[in-house]
Amino acid sequence: MFSRTVTQFIKRNVSSVRIVEVGPRDGLQNEAKILPTTTKIEFINRLSKTGLKNIEATSFVSAKWIPQMGDNVDVMKGIEKVDGITYSAIVPNMKGFEDAVETKTTEIAIGGSASETFTKKNFNCTIAEGVERVKSIMKAAKEKNIKVRGYVSTVISCPYEGKIKPSEVAKISEMLLKAGCYEISLGDTIGVGTPNSISEMLKEVLKVAPVETFAIHYHDTYGQALSNILASLDLGISVVDASVSGLGGCPYARGASGNAATEDVVYMLHGCGVKTGIDLELLIDAGKFICEELGRQSESKVNRATRKIKP
Amino acid sequence: MFSRTVTQFIKRNVSSVRIVEVGPRDGLQNEAKILPTTTKIEFINRLSKTGLKNIEATSFVSAKWIPQMGDNVDVMKGIEKVDGITYSAIVPNMKGFEDAVETKTTEIAIGGSASETFTKKNFNCTIAEGVERVKSIMKAAKEKNIKVRGYVSTVISCPYEGKIKPSEVAKISEMLLKAGCYEISLGDTIGVGTPNSISEMLKEVLKVAPVETFAIHYHDTYGQALSNILASLDLGISVVDASVSGLGGCPYARGASGNAATEDVVYMLHGCGVKTGIDLELLIDAGKFICEELGRQSESKVNRATRKIKP
Repeated sequence: MFSRTVTQFIKRNVSSVRIVEVGPRDGLQNEAKILPTTTKIEFINRLSKTGLKNIEATSFVSAKWIPQMGDNVDVMKGIEKVDGITYSAIVPNMKGFEDAVETKTTEIAIGGSASETFTKKNFNCTIAEGVERVKSIMKAAKEKNIKVRGYVSTVISCPYEGKIKPSEVAKISEMLLKAGCYEISLGDTIGVGTPNSISEMLKEVLKVAPVETFAIHYHDTYGQALSNILASLDLGISVVDASVSGLGGCPYARGASGNAATEDVVYMLHGCGVKTGIDLELLIDAGKFICEELGRQSESKVNRATRKIKP
Repeated sequence: MFSRTVTQFIKRNVSSVRIVEVGPRDGLQNEAKILPTTTKIEFINRLSKTGLKNIEATSFVSAKWIPQMGDNVDVMKGIEKVDGITYSAIVPNMKGFEDAVETKTTEIAIGGSASETFTKKNFNCTIAEGVERVKSIMKAAKEKNIKVRGYVSTVISCPYEGKIKPSEVAKISEMLLKAGCYEISLGDTIGVGTPNSISEMLKEVLKVAPVETFAIHYHDTYGQALSNILASLDLGISVVDASVSGLGGCPYARGASGNAATEDVVYMLHGCGVKTGIDLELLIDAGKFICEELGRQSESKVNRATRKIKP
């Protein structure tokens, strides 16, 4: 009767998960309080000690658009770059790409959306035109031997269009992979997905590329992030984006929820026998540090349930 | 490849879930602010309008032990009892049973723990002696045609002993069923379970009685409640205890987390095509009402993400 339960499948097929910590970028960029550069650098340096292998450190976006990212070059230059850890950054245009080169960034991320209306409103172009636009970045990155990760946002629902067809998510994922992205991170930007809609979406994208090609990036706006991650592991997904202490949020959704909280994700994974290479106590410590600096409560229940472990 | 994913299993095998709303009892008894009786009555009356069929209204415990439950008889007498809804209460002893009879309570719940140490510290007896003690209540309930539900707490871990063997949970569940309970609610009292430990526990208890016999009662202390519910549905469980807005907590665990928030559970279930008969908007409204009365933030992300719908 129980020959293929979700936990059995995960134990047999997902021995380890690579966590992509997006707190310093996706997290902080949605926090109202602007932090000093030194605080951001200390935050990332603390994350580097946790065992994380992927840290999205900043976004080379204009400070006019996202003030919190105004010190992006100083942050990327100021952090201690530990061997074996990839420090990536969002690159929205060629100006941003130049910043990436100047700061010796080895991996960049470019973005797209599965919704035509969202793309029109945010980038003033169609989805296909957006992919064309990033091709100049892709070409330059290839020449400099910089890896490019692709974000696809609004994979479940769009604040303007509502429900997004899984086939649309598969289509832009395929376009970005053909353009040269090595990995696609699938974002439930407004956090409305449930295990069912998440599974339906994933089954469709898995038709266009192997499961190893995809990462998941879920927001916890409706409290579903961990269940959605569980349902994704059930389909073999093994790369998970998360923000320590659930930093961030989404300007389009009411409520203040950010990404899945890394501490809670790691707690679940370790409990399920899935390796992450992360020291949960050090991660909790990094979460407490940044929440104190922001003057906010941690959105990680694991963090709130535990005392400060390292002074 | 995907012939038996968790969401497929649920869609095929768990067409509906019965939610047991424990907010007025397990939720409120762990809230510091003592509410007026009229507020509790209005809270329960609002819950009665949501489509819920099971509401645990109070506990016939001494006010000396749990001051919030000091008006238990007045609450049970004061609520509007809607046909088709079961209003249950905890009964810890024969004095409590007399209160149940006086208030025409049609279903009661008795408690036990899967941990010998927890049982010793809380009830000053062994697990087996505890089951013997409730037999007088069971006998009296049978005579009065009152249904008895059994709680088994600390099914994953105990604050004194640590990890609890699944076989111990199966053993006390079987004892309580033999003593006459119609249903056993399995409580992860300190909320430390993960989908894996939850599944291992459930597989063991499902050896002693059919899946329909068991309800699950998970606390969200470590943010795992929804994932744990998903993993439980994956084993065919279809009765879920929850507290609107995640009211309550556990005095033994750090952090302030209570039960799984009913709004978030219902959102997930409806998203997965599972019927609950509950109107989510009215449920959110009841959650906003009680949180305002308690002067606290809702622990339901669904509730926090939505505006007040009914004035």
